[in-house]
Amino acid sequence: MIILSEKDVKRAVAMKEAIQVMKDAFIQYARGDYVMPARNFYQVEDEDYFLLMSSFVKDVIGLKVATSFPSNRNRNVPVTQAMILLMHRKTGKPLAMMSGTMLTAIKTGAVSGVAIQQFKQDAKSVGLIGTGQQGLYQLLAALESANIKNIYLYNRSEHKIKSFIEQFRRLSNSDVHIEQMGSVEALLDKSEIVITATTSFTPVIPDVPELYQNQDKLFVAVGSFDAAMRELPESLFRSATYYFIDSEDGKKECGDIIDPIRNKWMEEDDVILLSDILTGKRQVHLKSNEPIVFKTVSMALFDTCIGYFVYHKAKEFNLGQKVDLSFMN
Amino acid sequence: MIILSEKDVKRAVAMKEAIQVMKDAFIQYARGDYVMPARNFYQVEDEDYFLLMSSFVKDVIGLKVATSFPSNRNRNVPVTQAMILLMHRKTGKPLAMMSGTMLTAIKTGAVSGVAIQQFKQDAKSVGLIGTGQQGLYQLLAALESANIKNIYLYNRSEHKIKSFIEQFRRLSNSDVHIEQMGSVEALLDKSEIVITATTSFTPVIPDVPELYQNQDKLFVAVGSFDAAMRELPESLFRSATYYFIDSEDGKKECGDIIDPIRNKWMEEDDVILLSDILTGKRQVHLKSNEPIVFKTVSMALFDTCIGYFVYHKAKEFNLGQKVDLSFMN
Repeated sequence: MIILSEKDVKRAVAMKEAIQVMKDAFIQYARGDYVMPARNFYQVEDEDYFLLMSSFVKDVIGLKVATSFPSNRNRNVPVTQAMILLMHRKTGKPLAMMSGTMLTAIKTGAVSGVAIQQFKQDAKSVGLIGTGQQGLYQLLAALESANIKNIYLYNRSEHKIKSFIEQFRRLSNSDVHIEQMGSVEALLDKSEIVITATTSFTPVIPDVPELYQNQDKLFVAVGSFDAAMRELPESLFRSATYYFIDSEDGKKECGDIIDPIRNKWMEEDDVILLSDILTGKRQVHLKSNEPIVFKTVSMALFDTCIGYFVYHKAKEFNLGQKVDLSFMN
Repeated sequence: MIILSEKDVKRAVAMKEAIQVMKDAFIQYARGDYVMPARNFYQVEDEDYFLLMSSFVKDVIGLKVATSFPSNRNRNVPVTQAMILLMHRKTGKPLAMMSGTMLTAIKTGAVSGVAIQQFKQDAKSVGLIGTGQQGLYQLLAALESANIKNIYLYNRSEHKIKSFIEQFRRLSNSDVHIEQMGSVEALLDKSEIVITATTSFTPVIPDVPELYQNQDKLFVAVGSFDAAMRELPESLFRSATYYFIDSEDGKKECGDIIDPIRNKWMEEDDVILLSDILTGKRQVHLKSNEPIVFKTVSMALFDTCIGYFVYHKAKEFNLGQKVDLSFMN
C-alpha cells in the first residue's frame, strides 16, 4: 500500500490530466458503469460534520473520508480535510491512501474545466467570485480549458485578494492579467465565464434580469453543497433555457438545483446532466443570446476516479511511502 | 499523521493492555458516552462486502474500513482486511491510519478476556473450537485472564491444527500444555472455558441437554456475526439462566442472539449487557451448577478505543511512519 501526501498528489496530477480524467468519469457516469452508495453525513458537533463517500468503479473501491469543520475558522486549521482510500475491487486489498484535500479542489476545478471546454472554449476572460482554495483550482482549470487572457476577481473581504493572487501566480506559473474588481457588476460586465466559489446562503450575483438577458456568458457555480445554500439568482435561471448539472443526486442535495426546479424557474426536463451532453444522449441547441448555466455538486464517483488516476501516476513516478498493512502473526 | 503497519500495531499493544482498554470501552458503552452511527455494509460482488464502522468517543473520531471477501479463500489473500483511521474530534485532523486486521483479532480476544476475568478467572483449562486467526488471540486472552494450564483444540479440518499450534507458540511465547482433541465432546469434557471461533451456520457443539446441565462452564462465542450464523445450540441456552452479550445491536445483527430470543430459549430480560454487569447497573446471582454464556459481536466503539490506545502507544514508542497530509498550495 502506498501513502501519498499533498506534495505527492500535486506531483502526480496536472490540471490538464485531471480534466481528462473527469471527462472519462462523466462517461462512466452516463453509462451507469459504477456502484455509488448514498453519502453518509454524521454530525460531530454543531456545524461540524464527518463524511463518508464511497464508490466502486473499474477495478477499484474508493472511499473519501472527509471532515467539514466550520469551527476550524477560529483555529488556523482548514475547514475541509479529506483522505481518499483505494482498495482493490477483486480482493479488497488496500492499494493507497492519499491526501484528498487539494485533490478535491483539483477535481472540482477539473469538472468545471470539462464544462468550459464543452460550452466556452473560446472565452478570453473569466471572473471569479469567492477567492478561497477552491477558486485557485477553478482558475487553473479555466486557463487549461479556454484561451483566457484576463482574470477578474471579486471577494467580499477585499484584503484576501492579494494573497490569493500571489498563491495563484505560484500555482499556475502564469503571468495572465489579473484584476481585482470593486463590484460584482463590474466583474460580470467584463467576464465571458463567471465562476462562483463561495459558501453563500444567498445569491452572490445580483437578481437583475437585464444582467443575464441577451448575452451568452457561461456561469459555473461550484460553492453550494447543501439544501440551504444558493449562489445563483432567480433571474439567471429564468434567462437560461437549460441548466446543466453534474449529478442526478444534486437535485436532492443542493439549493442551487432544488430551488430553481421547485419554484419552476426551470422546467425539470431542461435540467440536464452534463454527462448526457458529453455522450450525445441529450442534444441541445443553445442560442447565441442566452446564458449557459452549469452547477457542480460532485460525487463519490469523481473522487474515486481522480484518486485512482493519482495512484497509477504515483506508481509510475515512484512517489509516496510504502507501508505494509498485510496480516501476519 | 502516522501510519502504523501490522508490525507497529503488534509492538504497540500487548493482550494484557488490550483487555484493560476493552474494560474501559465497556464502561464508556454503559455510560452512553459515545456516538456510534449504524454500520454500513455494501455488497461488492456475491458474498464479498465492504464495511464502514465509525464512532466518536473521547476526543477522537474513529473509522474502521474493512473488506470481508470470502472469495479470497481461492486467492491466498486474507478474507478479512481492515484499516482503522483516527481523526481529532475537535478539529477533524487526521491523526493515524493503522492496519486493523490483527487489531480486530486482538480486540475480539480482549473482549473475551474481559468476560473470562469477570466469570471464570480461576479456570485452569480452555477449549477452542475453530483454529483460525481469531482463535490465536482468543487463547492469548484466555492465558492473560485465567490461570490456564491446559489448552484443548478442535478443528473440523485436523491438518490445520499443527500450524496453528506453531503459530500460537510463537505468538504467546508460552509452553502451556496444548492437546488436539478427536471430538468436540472430548473437548467439552476437559474444558472449563469453551470458546467457539468459527463462521458456522449451525451449532458447533452438540445440542444435547446433558452436556450443559449441572455444570458451570463458561461458553464464549466469538465467530458468528450475521443473522444466518449460529455457533451455539438450543439446549445450552435452555440450561443457562442468563445470556451475556457485548452489544445491544447484536440483538438485531447476529443469529446467536436473535434465535434464542425469538424462539424463547432465553427470556429477553435475561439477555444482559456485560457492560451493565461491569458497572453494577445489573446484578445477577449465578448458581454453581449452571453454564455461563457470553457472546461478542463487537462494535465500532471497541475498534475506535483500541485504535486510539495503539495511536498513543505508537507516539510514546515513536513507532510508524509520519506522513504530512496537511493542505498546502
